[in-house]
Amino acid sequence: MTDSNNLQKLQLELSKHASSMRGLHMRDLFMHNPNRAEAFSIELPDIFIDYSKNIITSEILESLFHYAELLDIKSSINSMFSGEKINITEKRAVLHTALRSKREEKLDVDGADIIELVHNELDKIKTFTSAIHSGEYCGWTNKSINTFVNIGIGGSNSGPKLVIDALSDYRKKNTYCFFISNIDYRQLNELKKNIDPETTLFIVSSKSFSTLETKANAESVKEWLVDVGCDQIEKHFVAITENEKAAIDFGISQSNIFHIWDWVGGRFSLWSAIGLVISLALGFDNFQRLLNGAREMDLHFKQGPNQSNAPVILALLDYWYNNFLDADTHAFIPYDESLKLFPDYLAQLFMESNGKSADLAGNSIDYKTMPVTWGGIGTDSQHAFFQLLHQGTQTIPVDFLAPLKKSGDKNHHRHLLANCIAQSQALLQGEDNPDPHKHFPGNKPSTTILYKELSPEILGKLLALYEHRTFVLGLLWKINSFDQWGVELGKKLAANIYENLKDNKTNTDIDSSTKILINKYLDSNK
Amino acid sequence: MTDSNNLQKLQLELSKHASSMRGLHMRDLFMHNPNRAEAFSIELPDIFIDYSKNIITSEILESLFHYAELLDIKSSINSMFSGEKINITEKRAVLHTALRSKREEKLDVDGADIIELVHNELDKIKTFTSAIHSGEYCGWTNKSINTFVNIGIGGSNSGPKLVIDALSDYRKKNTYCFFISNIDYRQLNELKKNIDPETTLFIVSSKSFSTLETKANAESVKEWLVDVGCDQIEKHFVAITENEKAAIDFGISQSNIFHIWDWVGGRFSLWSAIGLVISLALGFDNFQRLLNGAREMDLHFKQGPNQSNAPVILALLDYWYNNFLDADTHAFIPYDESLKLFPDYLAQLFMESNGKSADLAGNSIDYKTMPVTWGGIGTDSQHAFFQLLHQGTQTIPVDFLAPLKKSGDKNHHRHLLANCIAQSQALLQGEDNPDPHKHFPGNKPSTTILYKELSPEILGKLLALYEHRTFVLGLLWKINSFDQWGVELGKKLAANIYENLKDNKTNTDIDSSTKILINKYLDSNK
Repeated sequence: MTDSNNLQKLQLELSKHASSMRGLHMRDLFMHNPNRAEAFSIELPDIFIDYSKNIITSEILESLFHYAELLDIKSSINSMFSGEKINITEKRAVLHTALRSKREEKLDVDGADIIELVHNELDKIKTFTSAIHSGEYCGWTNKSINTFVNIGIGGSNSGPKLVIDALSDYRKKNTYCFFISNIDYRQLNELKKNIDPETTLFIVSSKSFSTLETKANAESVKEWLVDVGCDQIEKHFVAITENEKAAIDFGISQSNIFHIWDWVGGRFSLWSAIGLVISLALGFDNFQRLLNGAREMDLHFKQGPNQSNAPVILALLDYWYNNFLDADTHAFIPYDESLKLFPDYLAQLFMESNGKSADLAGNSIDYKTMPVTWGGIGTDSQHAFFQLLHQGTQTIPVDFLAPLKKSGDKNHHRHLLANCIAQSQALLQGEDNPDPHKHFPGNKPSTTILYKELSPEILGKLLALYEHRTFVLGLLWKINSFDQWGVELGKKLAANIYENLKDNKTNTDIDSSTKILINKYLDSNK
Repeated sequence: MTDSNNLQKLQLELSKHASSMRGLHMRDLFMHNPNRAEAFSIELPDIFIDYSKNIITSEILESLFHYAELLDIKSSINSMFSGEKINITEKRAVLHTALRSKREEKLDVDGADIIELVHNELDKIKTFTSAIHSGEYCGWTNKSINTFVNIGIGGSNSGPKLVIDALSDYRKKNTYCFFISNIDYRQLNELKKNIDPETTLFIVSSKSFSTLETKANAESVKEWLVDVGCDQIEKHFVAITENEKAAIDFGISQSNIFHIWDWVGGRFSLWSAIGLVISLALGFDNFQRLLNGAREMDLHFKQGPNQSNAPVILALLDYWYNNFLDADTHAFIPYDESLKLFPDYLAQLFMESNGKSADLAGNSIDYKTMPVTWGGIGTDSQHAFFQLLHQGTQTIPVDFLAPLKKSGDKNHHRHLLANCIAQSQALLQGEDNPDPHKHFPGNKPSTTILYKELSPEILGKLLALYEHRTFVLGLLWKINSFDQWGVELGKKLAANIYENLKDNKTNTDIDSSTKILINKYLDSNK
């Protein structure tokens, strides 16, 4: 039989499994197997993943593993690590994993040793960070720098912002950090009230140095600096870009330009020089610890057999819910205020990577790909949307995440953990009540990820875990997780409409809705 | 024919409409009717709602209106406004609309004039606000108060937090405002670094005064105040509660207790004394303007015929997508940094209200209710999850919101608006490309809400618009939007698990997953 026939056969098998699960309740699965949690959990150093509260059996998992083997995901994983051009629509390698490699490794891509390039850049980040922290590097009035403003959007914003917020316990004392991303001027307006330009460094992060928002915000900042009397702009800007020329034209010195490469996608870029702001805010050592943690997860992912491979197992569960059990969304709920930005970060990672409708071979596909990624923070979300998780009409798989230790009050932490564990228990067990308004059906799936505490290493591991899960999901759907053509059309149309708004002219060649919206603006700004 | 037969007949009709729309593209609907935007839009004072980019025809809308009439939603709407106990599972009236009524009105509920109660409390808020702002009210060291810390969770947090963030241009100068909600101690830890207790007022918002998080956070704050030498705790706390006794036992003076009533649900409560922090942060006049705006939307909702009624039309579209076009989520995307908290606020409003599986008659239901409410801010979201909106495999209706005017740079604002309009255009039109990776199918629905600028009145209107849309959706699904029994089971189980964690004992009588998670905590905290 051909592989394609085998794949179809397996999908049919999974569909049958799905039908057979509809009559079952997870309560009973737990009752029949007192060792279910031991069987369906993964113990990694400092991270414990309990996936036993999912609608699965050993047979289902076996079919899923079989499916992964038929697709030979192992060899695709190796292709990524070894620098093959697996981002086929853009003809690029995908090497965010190389960003956390050890200096002694080697990896040739198009004749260049990637590892050497990476470590040269890391050395430059380290040296620059040290010059800033020592006070050797000064602003235009010879004051040392204590405020870092990252100007970037998408991957040049959400990763570093998440890391710096999550690791606030590790922040350099008496330094301040801000993020400007939106084209909406409000962020700049508020920034200007809160910073001293003489002691501020602006970090312009844009691979192309032509991203609309980043360019406009950087220009507005430059104008403001000139207005307040800065006569040495170049002391207050650094750039992270592939387009050195554009950065120099903007007024940034060559020595303040950090490099990024085409084999690092925006949403996977916090490990590159895009993470400069992380190094400045937390110190280079902590940035290195973050990289080390991710590196550990890389090794687990690359070396472990599928059957004990955390990113593979979690991706297989995602595939199972999405393509066989009708789940259209997945909720991510950290019980950790320090991970409050994680659901938004994951929204980009998952949805930009896998919100696709064409397969690797260039065919339009007829099966569902990425579900909607959403969520919130525990315990707050319990008082917001948990009603729907417990009594709504959809099946919504949940990832709970929680720290086993946390600085601060022990009693508060105990309540935090108790609530996290209780929610997965309630979703699983439900509660029978003759009054349907007070009835809890249970049988709602969740995975719980407990980690020791949110150190740089553990955060690095968690982020890499979700990156690899994203990649495996793309393999299961046979799509390219590393391009994002879907963002291009909107950009193009926006440029046209901007001209209409600026030059006060209506476009007659467009649909009546778009026309009426343009006219509303023109009328109100007469 | 009975009403129930007629309803079934209409649902069948809508299903047929849905089938007939599957072969159509909205592009063609716009081509065939050059006045489509005029026909499918609503002009309210200062708010313009364009719903023409939805997968509808006049016939479909007619069927939907017919459905609303058969359900007699008009009379249910009147029942709410007139104080009938429409929250039948809790036997309560639902009167957040009374909170924005005029002083001269009258409304008797159980023998009490609700309007008088409301205005007495508003007067008290006004007087208190003025005593704080004038410096007449002082802390334990006789310093005036300039910092307001709201301690509350769910509805006692997200509404006021949203309003104060949205209206930052209206903030009282030299005052500071913080929100503590999560049981995670990190919020308090950071708060303590950022405030001066001598000039801080803590506002404890809890209807029952027994909400776990709020109680624990208030207790921890009290301990801290005592530790730093405060000998007049009562000067630094106010409460908003129904449970006066518990507040007094905590140490709050009678004169510092504000009332809330059982006919105000948490997620509809920012208009009540729960909004005290809004009045303190923005001034009472601006709080009143917010109420006035909501009041205007109430009148529109109560008086307008269904055919031109904004909340009714938007709810009918939601019903249409959810129950006939397989949409399982709805995205809310404000192109306004000032509304960055709006998607989270709406997540609670919609999902806690309508994430239900039992109808008003107490039957378990077999149709879908609330889809997942999610979203993010424009333009940031374009660089995060828009890939999936444009090229993913699900139909995801979107609400775009944007201000026609905004303080700050005009060019930034133009780009903001151009992007907002372009996205709805791109979702509608799509773009044909022979390469499936670069192909945009289009035909993706959205509604665009443009408002003049984010004044207190307009924000009040927008919030009331969404409240009423939530209520109408509940009517269409025949569910009670005003209870939340689904949050109870988790609370109960959490109390048990907390005892395990505190007393270091395993529970043998539970599933192996919950047991293993408890043990992980006990092991790591030995």
